[in-house]
Amino acid sequence: MSQGPNQQAAARPRPEHTPAPIRAVYRLRARPEEAERLAEKIAFEQTVELPPALVTDAEIRERVVARVESVDPDPASGEHFLARLAYPQHLASGQLSQLLNLLYGNVSILPDIRLMDVALPDSLLHAFRGPTHGIQGVRGMLGVFDRPLLATALKPRGLPDEKLAEMAGAFARGGGDIVKDDQNLVSADFEDFKHRVRACFEAVERANQATGRRCLYFPHLSAPAGELQRRMDYLQWLGVSGVLACPMVLGLDTARALIQARGMVYMAHPALTGSYTGSFEQGIDHGVLLGTLFRLGGADISVFPNFGGRFSFTRDQCRSIRRRLRGHLGQLAPALPCPAGGMRFENLADMCADYGSDAVFLIGASLLGYSDDLQDSTRAFQERIREHFDERLETPLERAAPDPDAAARKAGRLLEHLAFRDGFTWEGRDIQPYKIGGSLSHKGSRRIELVGQHGERTDFDLRYFEIAPGGHTSLEKHLHTHVIIGARGQGRLTSGDRDLTVRPMDVAYVPPLRTHQLSNPGEEPFGFFCIVDHERDRPMTP
Amino acid sequence: MSQGPNQQAAARPRPEHTPAPIRAVYRLRARPEEAERLAEKIAFEQTVELPPALVTDAEIRERVVARVESVDPDPASGEHFLARLAYPQHLASGQLSQLLNLLYGNVSILPDIRLMDVALPDSLLHAFRGPTHGIQGVRGMLGVFDRPLLATALKPRGLPDEKLAEMAGAFARGGGDIVKDDQNLVSADFEDFKHRVRACFEAVERANQATGRRCLYFPHLSAPAGELQRRMDYLQWLGVSGVLACPMVLGLDTARALIQARGMVYMAHPALTGSYTGSFEQGIDHGVLLGTLFRLGGADISVFPNFGGRFSFTRDQCRSIRRRLRGHLGQLAPALPCPAGGMRFENLADMCADYGSDAVFLIGASLLGYSDDLQDSTRAFQERIREHFDERLETPLERAAPDPDAAARKAGRLLEHLAFRDGFTWEGRDIQPYKIGGSLSHKGSRRIELVGQHGERTDFDLRYFEIAPGGHTSLEKHLHTHVIIGARGQGRLTSGDRDLTVRPMDVAYVPPLRTHQLSNPGEEPFGFFCIVDHERDRPMTP
Repeated sequence: MSQGPNQQAAARPRPEHTPAPIRAVYRLRARPEEAERLAEKIAFEQTVELPPALVTDAEIRERVVARVESVDPDPASGEHFLARLAYPQHLASGQLSQLLNLLYGNVSILPDIRLMDVALPDSLLHAFRGPTHGIQGVRGMLGVFDRPLLATALKPRGLPDEKLAEMAGAFARGGGDIVKDDQNLVSADFEDFKHRVRACFEAVERANQATGRRCLYFPHLSAPAGELQRRMDYLQWLGVSGVLACPMVLGLDTARALIQARGMVYMAHPALTGSYTGSFEQGIDHGVLLGTLFRLGGADISVFPNFGGRFSFTRDQCRSIRRRLRGHLGQLAPALPCPAGGMRFENLADMCADYGSDAVFLIGASLLGYSDDLQDSTRAFQERIREHFDERLETPLERAAPDPDAAARKAGRLLEHLAFRDGFTWEGRDIQPYKIGGSLSHKGSRRIELVGQHGERTDFDLRYFEIAPGGHTSLEKHLHTHVIIGARGQGRLTSGDRDLTVRPMDVAYVPPLRTHQLSNPGEEPFGFFCIVDHERDRPMTP
Repeated sequence: MSQGPNQQAAARPRPEHTPAPIRAVYRLRARPEEAERLAEKIAFEQTVELPPALVTDAEIRERVVARVESVDPDPASGEHFLARLAYPQHLASGQLSQLLNLLYGNVSILPDIRLMDVALPDSLLHAFRGPTHGIQGVRGMLGVFDRPLLATALKPRGLPDEKLAEMAGAFARGGGDIVKDDQNLVSADFEDFKHRVRACFEAVERANQATGRRCLYFPHLSAPAGELQRRMDYLQWLGVSGVLACPMVLGLDTARALIQARGMVYMAHPALTGSYTGSFEQGIDHGVLLGTLFRLGGADISVFPNFGGRFSFTRDQCRSIRRRLRGHLGQLAPALPCPAGGMRFENLADMCADYGSDAVFLIGASLLGYSDDLQDSTRAFQERIREHFDERLETPLERAAPDPDAAARKAGRLLEHLAFRDGFTWEGRDIQPYKIGGSLSHKGSRRIELVGQHGERTDFDLRYFEIAPGGHTSLEKHLHTHVIIGARGQGRLTSGDRDLTVRPMDVAYVPPLRTHQLSNPGEEPFGFFCIVDHERDRPMTP
């Protein structure tokens, strides 16, 4: 059935109540007499992108243009104003990319406007999955529940893989929790990537076997866009349970989709974010970007430059980030703040006091420079952290790396052998009703989903269809293609203006958007295998 | 054969000569005595991410750490310095994402550092395809060679699809060249997207038939990451020849890969870029981001806020962008600068003089507000532009929208019906040699690629294999799965520790990473269909 152009949003009945708006607060540098006008400019620029004089339609003014709810002097600065705008919720289209665009896309280019806060209604938050694991999930994988986690980065780039692996192993043996690639550790070549990642992963796993604890290794996911999935395939096969990725480099929603599809832990790196957060007069507030938006984008752990380090974040900015990562945000799981830099052995106690238990301390150079032995250094830092918390060590939980086949296998549907039985049926597979066109006879018409719908990891589905004498399938077309193998009797494939006879073992291909139909003009059942892409569009009537 | 961990970069012979470096210029706000130190900080931060004291390995210092080539007072500002750094070329890993990360990833978070210029060696530029169509390609599609192109945007969001389509049609009938969606035109629902885009596309096509000219319609590509390919499928089927996309929202390399794979014209929108370009003290230079980096990212047309408009770009910034889009950049095709805003009927002459012929003038509100009739307004603006150029109108070229099946169909390999012949062969398909293990007999062993390798648009390949008595396939495993359908005789599938007998019409599934082998212990040929994912990894020895 077509689900085509006849259905459109405009024709749908409008709901009686107006859904809650998206609220955003912008800081404006403006003279008092100009602040209101600038707020109005944002309201039009970010929605209709037209000057008010050209927006004459009352309904568009009501349903599309943002509403300026208030413009007040900024209590923190005499030169600035805080403007509060309400955007109709539907403008976000339930999409993270569009939300980003809506909140700051074009006004990023207007001077003197900074996005300071955002409040999303629950009905919109339901469109976002947020962190897959969150704080409790990551803790569960490690079996560590009552203290901050200790993490480090593998560097510098240029070290042989074996050296990096040695570092990873030493950190794990010393009791470290998470070891990640430096974000500069990028391999041009897939095979080099595999070698490096595998060496580090196995070094950590060996250490885990020796210590009986669990340390996680997160490789950096970076590759040409077309190769990202293949690298994720490899990481998943290897058993890696998380990755480091740079959302502002890969794209906020792109990184989310890549990592969420694998069920991995997502550690987000702040590369490029300084362009957004760095200027007082423009950009996006530290907490909104590295807290709210990264959490919406699925980050389980958000790395940011700690106060007191080589970067410029203040203690308040860091607090704002962690509040937004850990605080209430609809149904989204809380995420772990991960301050990096500025942490030395000497100030670990302060850090513990400031961040509390639910944080990851990412310590690179200070840990490497603490002693010549990374294992000893790690142990010392970890003990220093433990002094401040009652660690309740638990048995590391069952390995969390997902086995995509497990659920289906458990349910008994994923079978590796489907024995063929008399009468064209298969052991372990049910015959399903199949809506066959043709008024005369449905007798003997059947559809059997052989492979692809039972949890198998294939990019295609294999089905068996049988059409009784006089029957036919519906006349339709779609973007996806069909491959047909004749199995029983003979039938007709009408494909565009051609009629093809399909006999057992004949193979036929139906190209994209070709109108087609299968029919059985004969006296015997006509059976055929049909292979289709697993991900496919809905058929349309021609 | 395994291509696994035994091959690694470190073991490869190093080339004798050092490849040319990537050169970058940063503007630093620093006191004179601190400028050198800040430049060194960048050199370490962006490469080894360690303080100099911890980088003791001479080879890493030589091969990985960037070299500060010079630090000079900025002639344009007493408070600033220009630091010139040379990065070893290999650090970009031939990848756009990593190049972005290398040039500005972490230092984005350091205050007072702005990336002002970048020079890439030809040997690195060869890794980038750049604009697919470039200036000449876009001109060829339009048949317009000697004047700037006139473009507009469909808005506001909230108009019914029919109204938007009407606008698109009027602009095309008035002689406009490119009509694009406003970047706020985003549909939550795929069916709504289809309806809107199709209505606009068809309105433009009808107008083209009436005028005999060619106007191009570029929909905005925005969707949850997992749905982008499906939307591109639809656009390609519809015959759309280009899209508008926001590279800083989708990810610079993600947008490139999505659009280049379809051979479409790529019009890049500057949403969010103001965060990079807007502050004098930090971020990325206008020309580097909207010119060089967008062109590396495949943009055929780069939209940016024109000087004199509602945004804040200066005439010099606009000049810098267009110089980097149109000027020499290795083997990359030049791209079209597309100033937007600030263009009115009255200053079109100035714009023509300033930008010259190779530009796209994107005119929204001024065009809509010029008269009540968009067709008339378009005609007036277009005539105004023509007054300044000798337009050499050519017959619009053959429709450029790619037909993915055409090449294969031409070559005669894409067949829609493969009749089965005696002896298990198929009409139109050759038998290929197949390396079968087992010393005794290769007689009768064969592989036939039925579907998937001849240009068909499937996510899977269908092959027929036949193993002679006594023969077997190699023992192997891989991430991709197999689905097998018995066709002739019977054979054995060894899958992990199970031995399965495969008879005609039996179906078998080999899960990921399962070690497996097919063999024929019988007296008759054993033939089977094998379905695999089209995109798959290489087999490994167990």
